[in-house]
Amino acid sequence: MAQAPKHRQAIIEAAVRLFRQQGYAASGLNQIVEASGAPKGSMYHYFPEGKSAIAAEAVQWAARRVEGTLEDLAGQTGSAADLLRRYASLMAGWMAESGFRDGCPIATTLLENAPQVAPIREAGRSAFDAWARVFEARLTAQGLPPERARRLSLTAIAALEGALLMSRVQASGQPLVEVAEEIAIAFDAAITGRRPGPRQGPIE
Amino acid sequence: MAQAPKHRQAIIEAAVRLFRQQGYAASGLNQIVEASGAPKGSMYHYFPEGKSAIAAEAVQWAARRVEGTLEDLAGQTGSAADLLRRYASLMAGWMAESGFRDGCPIATTLLENAPQVAPIREAGRSAFDAWARVFEARLTAQGLPPERARRLSLTAIAALEGALLMSRVQASGQPLVEVAEEIAIAFDAAITGRRPGPRQGPIE
Repeated sequence: MAQAPKHRQAIIEAAVRLFRQQGYAASGLNQIVEASGAPKGSMYHYFPEGKSAIAAEAVQWAARRVEGTLEDLAGQTGSAADLLRRYASLMAGWMAESGFRDGCPIATTLLENAPQVAPIREAGRSAFDAWARVFEARLTAQGLPPERARRLSLTAIAALEGALLMSRVQASGQPLVEVAEEIAIAFDAAITGRRPGPRQGPIE
Repeated sequence: MAQAPKHRQAIIEAAVRLFRQQGYAASGLNQIVEASGAPKGSMYHYFPEGKSAIAAEAVQWAARRVEGTLEDLAGQTGSAADLLRRYASLMAGWMAESGFRDGCPIATTLLENAPQVAPIREAGRSAFDAWARVFEARLTAQGLPPERARRLSLTAIAALEGALLMSRVQASGQPLVEVAEEIAIAFDAAITGRRPGPRQGPIE
């Protein structure tokens, strides 16, 4: 009995690794089960609906890991801007370690499967919402109105996703660090200015 | 003789459409040649190196189209901020028209193939550089120092890429429009304030 959840979880984690590095379509069920170390038959036992069901769970599991990392960093940093800088720097380090083969654990799967596969799309939407909420909570605590905090947090997650793609293509962590710095500046400007709009700050 | 370049181009354009909507690995050579209307044999004639050579050219061709659209809009708009808003609004409209099946024409192919396939990676890097340069030119013309203009343009392209992914997942153009608005505010704040923020210069 103890084996069962272990194998199920191993399959999900193997799928996350493979989808992240080579994409969803390129990762066959056989490759996933082999990478997981689970017995071949267990795949069909745990995931009778097949690969798309594994992918939806893989997105959910990977998303919770990212959320946990963000929450941990939020506990160690004093502002949304510093949280963003720390997270980008961490990701840049992880990407370099993997030879720029890693990156966002869910982006490729989402691009390949949304909008066609509803459970994968929904898992993606929940992931982005959860990550943005970590920044939102910090920005509202720093005094931003909720609507502006929501929009800036959405922007931060979008910019991180794009920067992860660029870092992979450039085989360099620089886009992550530079993009995070610009968004951090935007966070601080919004908090300092408290006036959302183009004309904040002194005019020369 | 006149047939030859026509078929070659048709293959590239069919690959762009298929890779954009369903990804690189999910699009077989047979499907590409069928969608192109070219005779089956012509695939091997024009692309003896196979699918990855088609993908590198597909990325280049799609990238030039995006660059052309950005240049056209730059000619019609008065600021980098307005260019960004107009482009995001255009993309949001196109995505809605396609039932959110379109999106960035190169992101999925890049995520699936970078960093492993050098010609595809290089095509992606050139694409992002070319797009960013359109914003850079406008931002420097508006008075930003080149290094800040480069960094903000990189951020705009990253944010657009991420917003395109989010729009696809949410089946809504809202992330594109909201993210573009926040980056537009950051553009204008940088130009108005001429204060490049807390950490100017090289970033470690």
